[in-house]
Amino acid sequence: MEWITSKENRWIKAYRKLSTQRRARKEAGLFAAEGARLCEEAARCGLEIPQVLVTASALERYQSRLTPVLAAAGTVLGVSEDLAAALGDTKTPQGVFAICRTPDEIPPDLRPGGRYLLLENMQDPGNLGAVIRTADAFGADALLLSPDAADCYAPRVLRGAMGSVFRLPIHRGPLDGFIDRLHAMDLPVYAATLDKSSVPVWELPRGGAAVAVGNEGAGLSPQTVARCGRTVHIPMAGRTESLGAAVASSILLWELCGKSRGEGQGNG
Amino acid sequence: MEWITSKENRWIKAYRKLSTQRRARKEAGLFAAEGARLCEEAARCGLEIPQVLVTASALERYQSRLTPVLAAAGTVLGVSEDLAAALGDTKTPQGVFAICRTPDEIPPDLRPGGRYLLLENMQDPGNLGAVIRTADAFGADALLLSPDAADCYAPRVLRGAMGSVFRLPIHRGPLDGFIDRLHAMDLPVYAATLDKSSVPVWELPRGGAAVAVGNEGAGLSPQTVARCGRTVHIPMAGRTESLGAAVASSILLWELCGKSRGEGQGNG
Repeated sequence: MEWITSKENRWIKAYRKLSTQRRARKEAGLFAAEGARLCEEAARCGLEIPQVLVTASALERYQSRLTPVLAAAGTVLGVSEDLAAALGDTKTPQGVFAICRTPDEIPPDLRPGGRYLLLENMQDPGNLGAVIRTADAFGADALLLSPDAADCYAPRVLRGAMGSVFRLPIHRGPLDGFIDRLHAMDLPVYAATLDKSSVPVWELPRGGAAVAVGNEGAGLSPQTVARCGRTVHIPMAGRTESLGAAVASSILLWELCGKSRGEGQGNG
Repeated sequence: MEWITSKENRWIKAYRKLSTQRRARKEAGLFAAEGARLCEEAARCGLEIPQVLVTASALERYQSRLTPVLAAAGTVLGVSEDLAAALGDTKTPQGVFAICRTPDEIPPDLRPGGRYLLLENMQDPGNLGAVIRTADAFGADALLLSPDAADCYAPRVLRGAMGSVFRLPIHRGPLDGFIDRLHAMDLPVYAATLDKSSVPVWELPRGGAAVAVGNEGAGLSPQTVARCGRTVHIPMAGRTESLGAAVASSILLWELCGKSRGEGQGNG
């Protein structure tokens, strides 16, 4: 295994560029993944991993997680601890870095009976990562993002989503188009609002539906609310005006997905 | 109104210290609140506000939110836009800053039939703020924090909680003591785990209960799990191992609080 110690090494420079620049990710069709667990998830999900950078201590410490990563890697280079500290996006980097190929975008497979979450203008990477992780955990069929959403392959989104970016089908495009397609297959589409005269979230249909959620600051645009045709709200105790976008999405997903489709299996 | 332009002004220095140092907050019994809405909430909740610092443009822009703040303020000082930019904890400060008195700690009023969330070792300020906001929104009776939790009056917690820090009863102390008191009044206490043989969250009793949640990295300590005596889990679709602490808490609170106590009022 070759060891590199210079910040000027082309792989070091390439990794940093992919880690910090959305445009560089888009142009190259590659992204930067940091951490033993995230890299392991990328390998287990079958992503192509042209390059792995790893410290000596990480090789020892994360042996079992790294096994599939090293097997999938095109090339593996050793990096010094100093370089790892400079590469890392976190305070205490684990010393595991991978350059991965972004999976090809495939046309969304929208089906009657599906459970879909639409996100309008979700720009906060922490919130987007949390929603992706929750949608995956609760078994949503896909996440549909408006074109202005944060990049799913940004480091903070990847870290927040804990590998769910590789598992959950995520599509990006004009929400109007998605909504029209869902309507065309008779799937009910709800706009999440604060309007207490709308349907309470526990009355979402059990046979599949889609829910659109706005961002924290602005909520959904009137245009999207109108396009959805139906509205839903999360009843609250009345002391606060609203929930954060990530928490609101988690409650909507929880009820939409029929409590992870386990409802009725217990006696609750 | 007096205007100040020097960074060396004693109120400017006092505000910055309160904003950045937990120890300074504790010693003075004061904290720093930033933003028109947060300051408005502090005033509406009856907090003592010895000092308000405000820019000329904020006075104009946030007139209605500032009315109760200025009425409650001991003294109001004008600050330049430059000073506001230096004081602000956010990228685009609104130019509204208040030094508020921390409410006196009162002994927890734990009651049979109550809904309580216990948080062990919740150190991430963003997560803590989100949980406080959600607990308030869903009508939990109190939040019980272990001694090592983040400071509720840290700027990021205040910002995430959106004023709920002033409304929700929050108590800090050894969890063992809280759990023993809850048991003594026959309230069931559940430890949130990933154990699928434990009670699913929708079977939490409707007549009140307490749930303990661990932090993201470590989960609950075995000691706390044992002390609670019962365990609960959030059933998942199986693609992910766990949820983030803020999202897990929001689902537990949602079910614990009987869907904001609105369940049964609808036909869901």
